[in-house]
Amino acid sequence: MKIIRLVPVIVVALTLPAVAQDAAGTRSTSGDFATLEAAQNAANAKAGPRTVPGRAIPVPATASPQLQASIAAPYRVPNWNANPRSAAEWKELINRLAAASAAAQIGIREKLGVTLEPTVVGGVKAFIVTPKEIAPENRNRLLVHVHGGGYVYNPGEAGTGEATLMAAYGGFKVISFDYRMPPDHPYPAAMDDAMAVWKAALGMQQPRNMAIFGTSTGGGMTLAMILRARQEGLPLPAAIAPGTPWSDLTETGDTYKTNELLANVLVSYSGYLSHAAKLYANGHDLKDPMISPIYGDFTGFPPAILTSGTRDLFLSLTVLTHRKLRRAGVEAELQVFEGMSHAQYNFDPYAPETKETFSEIARFFDKHLGK
Amino acid sequence: MKIIRLVPVIVVALTLPAVAQDAAGTRSTSGDFATLEAAQNAANAKAGPRTVPGRAIPVPATASPQLQASIAAPYRVPNWNANPRSAAEWKELINRLAAASAAAQIGIREKLGVTLEPTVVGGVKAFIVTPKEIAPENRNRLLVHVHGGGYVYNPGEAGTGEATLMAAYGGFKVISFDYRMPPDHPYPAAMDDAMAVWKAALGMQQPRNMAIFGTSTGGGMTLAMILRARQEGLPLPAAIAPGTPWSDLTETGDTYKTNELLANVLVSYSGYLSHAAKLYANGHDLKDPMISPIYGDFTGFPPAILTSGTRDLFLSLTVLTHRKLRRAGVEAELQVFEGMSHAQYNFDPYAPETKETFSEIARFFDKHLGK
Repeated sequence: MKIIRLVPVIVVALTLPAVAQDAAGTRSTSGDFATLEAAQNAANAKAGPRTVPGRAIPVPATASPQLQASIAAPYRVPNWNANPRSAAEWKELINRLAAASAAAQIGIREKLGVTLEPTVVGGVKAFIVTPKEIAPENRNRLLVHVHGGGYVYNPGEAGTGEATLMAAYGGFKVISFDYRMPPDHPYPAAMDDAMAVWKAALGMQQPRNMAIFGTSTGGGMTLAMILRARQEGLPLPAAIAPGTPWSDLTETGDTYKTNELLANVLVSYSGYLSHAAKLYANGHDLKDPMISPIYGDFTGFPPAILTSGTRDLFLSLTVLTHRKLRRAGVEAELQVFEGMSHAQYNFDPYAPETKETFSEIARFFDKHLGK
Repeated sequence: MKIIRLVPVIVVALTLPAVAQDAAGTRSTSGDFATLEAAQNAANAKAGPRTVPGRAIPVPATASPQLQASIAAPYRVPNWNANPRSAAEWKELINRLAAASAAAQIGIREKLGVTLEPTVVGGVKAFIVTPKEIAPENRNRLLVHVHGGGYVYNPGEAGTGEATLMAAYGGFKVISFDYRMPPDHPYPAAMDDAMAVWKAALGMQQPRNMAIFGTSTGGGMTLAMILRARQEGLPLPAAIAPGTPWSDLTETGDTYKTNELLANVLVSYSGYLSHAAKLYANGHDLKDPMISPIYGDFTGFPPAILTSGTRDLFLSLTVLTHRKLRRAGVEAELQVFEGMSHAQYNFDPYAPETKETFSEIARFFDKHLGK
């Protein structure tokens, strides 16, 4: 399934032993560049795939120090390349990662003045996430949060981190729900839960005063929820914020290749993503719009704000989704952060880019939601 | 000056001779990936620069066939790596490229029903670019176009291609001006000409009915024109469209590295860009906001729409400019196209992405300009 072509451009390195051996140095003579230039020109003299040499890419000084720390971080092992051989192995991994994540949430909520209350919404386990102060204009507004994690990670409180950030930086009351996931509950369980929550939310607040948001799988599900709400004749929310959405579960999009192995969160589709996609779809067509909503019709979608980063493995998915929304005539904004990999605006709760992301989403919601 | 670090990850290739030698093949066994995975995990196990292997990156099927052709095209030689040793050599190259480009414009204008009339505006050579039909809502509107080309390329009619596209797809009357450039006329000649044109335009139309737009150097100059108009107490246009703007003439921004040698238009800062930057600045500080406007204060800027692509060497410059505008409270939209390198929305006049780019800019101008 996986194709990584390691090509003869390697000879460039072999003709530059002094440079290759001086990984810590900063060789910069024009002679070095001239050699590389000639080899690259020769390797890219015909139309077709682009040949690029192996290299070390520095952490950009143009991101905040906090985001720089996220960019510099090692690959997330075992998150990115997990390939459990059994349901039991999946559960062990999922629960281990979730426990660590949930534990970390406690201090973050305290510091941000956010409270979390377990509840059940539409028969689905959920959490009411509330900021210290609900902004006056948000008193009659309600947000529904769909957590990410490739349809396998982040059950329970582990999935609530983004809801906390939205509550804290936007001043909104948020419902974050704990949808069922593989290996026990493949598609359509997660979507069934999502729709049950949306139907229950419609009994709690007017749809014109509500928005749905989420990142990665949560962004893909946000889009799929609109497709399905339309299909089921349900009212739509006033706005959505699909963050770097997993809108296509097949390996489609240029940055799956261009940012492969550079992106330190997801790293490569050939990691857990490819396994999780199959586990979730459970034999269904990966291109079913309820699974990969980019294959659906976006006509009549609510206004949307999308977020990604220049190193995001899903940058292409984000911009393809943005363009498709725009071509369908939907008001859709795009924000892309320098150097950021997948969903890293959720990583450091105190990074300027994190505050900026949720402040922009809050502004967008404020513009589009009734009061 | 140039640093390309070719690092020990090369051993990954050397341990995979079958793959390395099979450049045309599509080896995909999980064993291949497991080897790569292990090597990459080891090379990226510590915080710091990211190590990526050499590889061949396919042309994405997610772009239109026309854009795919632009993405697949070989490096632009000698445009990207020109390094003339004298003013005479620069002029020979510039004029040769400009002649070819100007010749190509004739058929494009005919096909798109656009006329071009040489004129002088504010003492500066310019062209009035007019569509077959000016849209009714645009009768009292006027756009000012600033061409790109790294402050050296595209004198004369060669610089008018983007104005033709804006006129054709937006239904606007456009003034495109032929500012003085190095080697004969370094900074501030280009900006002096730009401001002379803007002052003259203020006598032709109300500023609230005007916009300024341009790509690359034209995008950077668009931003610098606003800084200088504010400094000189001149009225500002109602909107701007800096396309993938050269807003920083130093090598700053993550995609200068991440997209280096992948981007087939500019390829690398170490090509002509580094030489053109010095030639233009002519001893001035490259971080002077009138040369690199990203170092200026964007407060009070007109609404802006920015365009880039996922393979653009200037993707970082574009998103950094977008974020800085937003942080200054400016209404700013971003559109990023799948797989696109620098300014490729100007390359094939008939590509869907080209029409989409200028239709979006036209919509944005229509929203913000008076009538």
